[in-house]
This record gives sequence, C-alpha cells and structure tokens, in this order.
Amino acid sequence: MQNFEFHNPTKIVFGSATIPRLADLVPGDARVLILCGGASAEKNGTLAEVRTALGERLVQEFGGIEPNPTYETLMHAVEQVRREKLDFLLAVGGGSVIDGSKFVAAAVNFPADPWEILLSHGQQVASALPFGTVLTLPATGSEMNSGSVITRRATQAKLAFMSPHVFPQFSILDPTRTYTLPPQQIANGVVDAYVHIIEQYLTYPVGGMAQDRFAEGLLQTLIEIGPQALATPDDADVRANLMWVATLALNGLIGSGVPQDWATHMIGHELTVAHGIEHARTLAIVLPSLLNVQRADKRAKLLQYAARVWQITSGDEEQRIDEAINRTAQFFESLGVKTRLADYGLARAAIDPLLAQLEAHGMTAIGEHQNIDLPVSRKILEGAL
Amino acid sequence: MQNFEFHNPTKIVFGSATIPRLADLVPGDARVLILCGGASAEKNGTLAEVRTALGERLVQEFGGIEPNPTYETLMHAVEQVRREKLDFLLAVGGGSVIDGSKFVAAAVNFPADPWEILLSHGQQVASALPFGTVLTLPATGSEMNSGSVITRRATQAKLAFMSPHVFPQFSILDPTRTYTLPPQQIANGVVDAYVHIIEQYLTYPVGGMAQDRFAEGLLQTLIEIGPQALATPDDADVRANLMWVATLALNGLIGSGVPQDWATHMIGHELTVAHGIEHARTLAIVLPSLLNVQRADKRAKLLQYAARVWQITSGDEEQRIDEAINRTAQFFESLGVKTRLADYGLARAAIDPLLAQLEAHGMTAIGEHQNIDLPVSRKILEGAL
Repeated sequence: MQNFEFHNPTKIVFGSATIPRLADLVPGDARVLILCGGASAEKNGTLAEVRTALGERLVQEFGGIEPNPTYETLMHAVEQVRREKLDFLLAVGGGSVIDGSKFVAAAVNFPADPWEILLSHGQQVASALPFGTVLTLPATGSEMNSGSVITRRATQAKLAFMSPHVFPQFSILDPTRTYTLPPQQIANGVVDAYVHIIEQYLTYPVGGMAQDRFAEGLLQTLIEIGPQALATPDDADVRANLMWVATLALNGLIGSGVPQDWATHMIGHELTVAHGIEHARTLAIVLPSLLNVQRADKRAKLLQYAARVWQITSGDEEQRIDEAINRTAQFFESLGVKTRLADYGLARAAIDPLLAQLEAHGMTAIGEHQNIDLPVSRKILEGAL
Repeated sequence: MQNFEFHNPTKIVFGSATIPRLADLVPGDARVLILCGGASAEKNGTLAEVRTALGERLVQEFGGIEPNPTYETLMHAVEQVRREKLDFLLAVGGGSVIDGSKFVAAAVNFPADPWEILLSHGQQVASALPFGTVLTLPATGSEMNSGSVITRRATQAKLAFMSPHVFPQFSILDPTRTYTLPPQQIANGVVDAYVHIIEQYLTYPVGGMAQDRFAEGLLQTLIEIGPQALATPDDADVRANLMWVATLALNGLIGSGVPQDWATHMIGHELTVAHGIEHARTLAIVLPSLLNVQRADKRAKLLQYAARVWQITSGDEEQRIDEAINRTAQFFESLGVKTRLADYGLARAAIDPLLAQLEAHGMTAIGEHQNIDLPVSRKILEGAL
C-alpha cells in the first residue's frame, strides 16, 4: 500500500425528511446565497422546504447554474456575493451546482483573477466561504469531496481544481428528493459513480486490500441497483443505496493509498467540451475502449475485476478480460447509456480535433503510468468508434 | 437503510516514516503532554522519534497508562495538565492509551467530577483539549473515532463514553511501528477488529448494501491477513492492511444507517473486570455463543455472512449457520485466541457473579433488539463454558 493522507471533514446528514435540519446546520446569523440549477428544485418543492428551514435568515438566490457549470455564469454569483455581503453558500442540486458553488466559495475572496484557481488546480486557494449542500442528484460525489470541475466557455476549457478549503461543511442527502429525476439522469448518475470507482480501482495492484474490497463492493452494488433504480423510481431502499454509493465512490476513501487513473475522465471532458455529450455518457464511451487498449498494464486488476465483480472464472485470461470489458459496456447499455462514438453521431473525422484539444490542455501523459500519450488516446478513441 | 449522520474529522497520516509529520501537525506553540503506556514505545525508538519531531516545543510525558485504562491513573494526568498548563495531548500507543487520552482531554476542563463523563456516556462533555495520536497497535479503532472505554478500579465498572469533542485531530499510522509487537497483541488486535465489524454487521437486514459489502470486505481481509500477520511480522503490506482495516472497522462508516449489536462487548467487559481476561479474548469467548443463542433473530444476516464471508453454500440453513459460527471460532483459535471460558480457568460457578455485574451496570436489555436480558446472557455464558 502507498503512503497516504485522508481527511474528510464533511458532515453527512442522510435520510428522508432531513432538510429541516438546515435550521441547525446553517449559522443563525448567516447571510445565505442559495445556488441552484434549472427549475426542478423549485418544481418538486425542495427549494420551498429549504426556504422554510432557513427561517428568518437573510436569503438570496442564484439560479441557472448549468450542467458543466461555467466560469462565465458563476462569476455573476461571485459578484452577487460580494455586492450583497453574503457569507454562507447553500448549494441545492447535483454535482454541477455543488462544483459551481465550490468555485464561488473559493473565488469570492480570491485576490487575483479567479480563473487562476483552475489554472493552479486549486493550489492558490488559501480560504473559501463556508458552504453546505442539499443533494438532489446522486452521481458525482461532489457533496463529500474537495474537487470541482469548471468549464470556461470562451476558451473551451474544462478544468478541475481541488482544495481542502472547499469541503462542504455539511451535505444533506435525502433519497426521496431523487424520485422525480428523469430516468436519463439516474442512468447517468449510476455510470458516473461506476467510472469514479473504476478510475481508483482498475490500475495495478499495490496490496490495498480494503480499498479493493470496498471498490468491488460499491461496483457490485451499482450493478445490482442500477436497473432497479430505473424500474422502480420510488423504491426508497434502492434510491438510498444509490445516493450513498455515489457519495462513497468519490469521497477519497477508496482512492487512499492506491494509484489512480482518471484518463477516461480527461478524454471524456474533451468530448463534452467539443460535442456537448453529457459527462457520464462520455465516460461510457471512453472506458471500455481504454480498458481494452491498456489491458497489458491493467492485466492483474482486470482479472481481479472479472473474478470478484463479475464472477467470471472460466476461459483463459484474455477471454476473461474480454468478457469483463464486454459486461461493463453491456451494463452501461442496459441503463440506456450508449457506449459508441457512432451512437452520438461522431465518426473518425472527430478524432483529430479531440487529440488537438487534449494537447492544448496538457493531457499528453495521462493514466496511472502517465503513458497514455496522444497516439494511445487515438487508439482509445478509434476503439470507441 | 436507516437515517444517519456521519461526521469524522480526524486526519489520517498513513505509512512508513510519517512520525516526522508531527512537526507540522502539532501547533508550533503547543505545550504538549505525551501520554503512553508501558516501556515498548521507549524501547523500540518511537518515543525518541516523537520527541525529535516535536523539536523545541515544551513537552512533558505521562507514562504507565495500563490496558483497560483506569480513572484512577488518568486523573493523575489530568492533574499534571492542569498544574503545568499544558494545552495539547499526544497519545503514543494503542487503544488504551488513546482511550485514556480522550478521557484526559475531556476531563481537564470538565466543571464537575470527571467520572460524570462516563456516567453521562459523554453527553455532558462540552469541550476537550485538542489531541493527536501516534498509533502503535492496530486493534481498537480509537485513533479515528470519538469513543473511549474507561475502567474505575474502585467500583469495578468499565464504562464507555462518546463525544464529538474527542475525535483526534490527527492520527499517524505507521505500520512499521507494529513489527516488534508480541504475537499475542497482534492476535488480539485481529480479533478485536473482527468483532467490531461483526457488532455492526451481524444483526438484521435493513438494506444497507454498501455497509454490508464494506463489512464483508473487511472481514474477508482479516481472515486472509490474520495468520500472515503472525507468520511474517515484518511483511509491510500485511501490517499496513491490518492497521488500516482495524481503523476502518470502527470509524463510524460501516455502522452508519444500520442497526448495531454490541452485546458481545457488554458481556465481555464484565469478564475483563471480574477476571482480568484481555479484552479481545473476552470477545472471542462470547461471540460464537452469542451468535448461536441469537440465531433466530440474526438468521438472515447469519446466512449472508456464511455465504459472502465464508463461501458456505451447501447444507441446509441451520447447517450453514452452524458452520459459519464454527469457522468464526476456529479462526480465533487459529490465531491462538482461545474461545472457551474453561480455557481461562472459569467454570459454571463464574456465571452468577457475571450476571450480577451485568445487572449492576444496567446491562439487562442489550443487543440490537434489546432482548438480551439476564436469562439470555446466562445462556450465552453457559454456551461458552
């Protein structure tokens, strides 16, 4: 096992009817900015519950944070916080709203151009406004980690930052809030969480036995509940498990002390920026092909994944690896998430521009061995045609 | 899944050669009290490393904290902290030293008789001195939780308290520090961690799928590495996994959202108080018999435990449960930890006084259903003769 540090101070308040806990969780004298996305939090009553719980506090709202939240939009929230002297942020939504709120929290008192936060990957962040979240969409894990991904529309850049200052102080996870989500968002959430786990698990063995078992347990759970979450949207236990698994998938725990990959995300980000394909769908496109192309480097873990997650024990090693990769893609497809570039209208001509983007964003040596250079990324994209 | 709150702010610094990190982790102007147990931390060089890392800070020491740390001993440390105006505690040792340090941290500024901390199970604790730990013995998980068990010699009471104020600020987990531990302490640590997991897992199903998978993964890991930890004491990976698994076994994660038992601990505590049997050994005595006596209530989880942890799939249900319980006891025995009261020189005559102690300490309705009353405890103890 590798040396590691693990520190996750976010308080999780989990379960049905937990939104009223905001009354205690948010300081009584806070000047609050609620950040949210589209109209669903209003429509399904979540925002009304939040407003009630905040009671007499000064509360303002900032709506319209888009999927793949943009610097351009978020800077308006930064201005509002500065202008109105607000001092506590409350993100009500999914990963995009929470990622955006982390950027706002870090940007408000940032002494230079806040885009530097992204360019420095968060290292220049010395403080942030305190904030909490009310999660409405299980997927990204942002509710219990210190990472954020922001897109700059002007330059077509989608960059990540991390900082210990942007852990949410608390996150309220009420699974009943997910009942009304469209099936496509649930399917995306399952795929997103699945690939988060794979990025931290499917590399090479370093003897992280608990990390492996945890990752395998989360993957098995997603395989079991993914289809159920689509078939029976108001199954409380299924939605509760989906919500908690998606959080555990990226709260730092299973990635502690083990190598991590993240190349699927880096390539996927370029697909989103260039073609507007939803984040999770880009992962479903890239991952199976990446596993196939990197099968030599990932051999030992692919065999372990085949055996422990998919119970594949017959056939020679290459066959077992093939079957594990196929089962992975079939799982995504079974949720209605297509895994081929062609399914999204993209052909071979799309590849060169994507490689140019990877180069422009410095993504020329990615993956757990930093050996996915542009020619390997080309192979991965060609394998996904 | 049940509603839950999870909050664990302890920073883990894990790996070899991490003790020098104390230089950053302890405030530069801290007036430090190092708390430790017997002579081993001095003998194996850990204390010297700690002193070096603390540099020019004012540092005092308090040694001699015993296994099952006592109120009587710890109150001397409380007096020293008060007298010398110390403001930061550093526990260097295993669970007893850390539990003891938690009590000292809570007692120093406690406005009444500190024994009230135990009598109120921690609810009266409104603040505590900050403290960190350097773990030398993987077993109790105290390095990453807010619980503590203290014994009062005068009244033969062994009581627990919990308080969010006594999470360690940080814990340094250096697996190489465990190489020189006596085999008996390693065996006890494996059993202790194993039973911690069982107490939170082997109750009744509530659909906590991730919690179940995590618990099963930790149990499987202990079954795999327990014998190796004894056979090859300086296997870095085995000791690293043992240390991290023991921490994860009781840091609140696997117990969130699920029912918990803890009757094995409650009965075991009385065996320690009355007969001085080491904590882990009392658990090894009580657990197999308790599982057998409670097999109806625990039926579904016992079958799941048999299948997923021990891969027992043949035989009828009663046979599978029998085999899972037997394999559990055999696992403890294989580590040199005896599982029968007779192995410790105790016969039927010992049972009545133990029941009287349980009654005196209010332990008359324990377990996940609070249905282990004194007659059931009698059956459990008789089954362990």
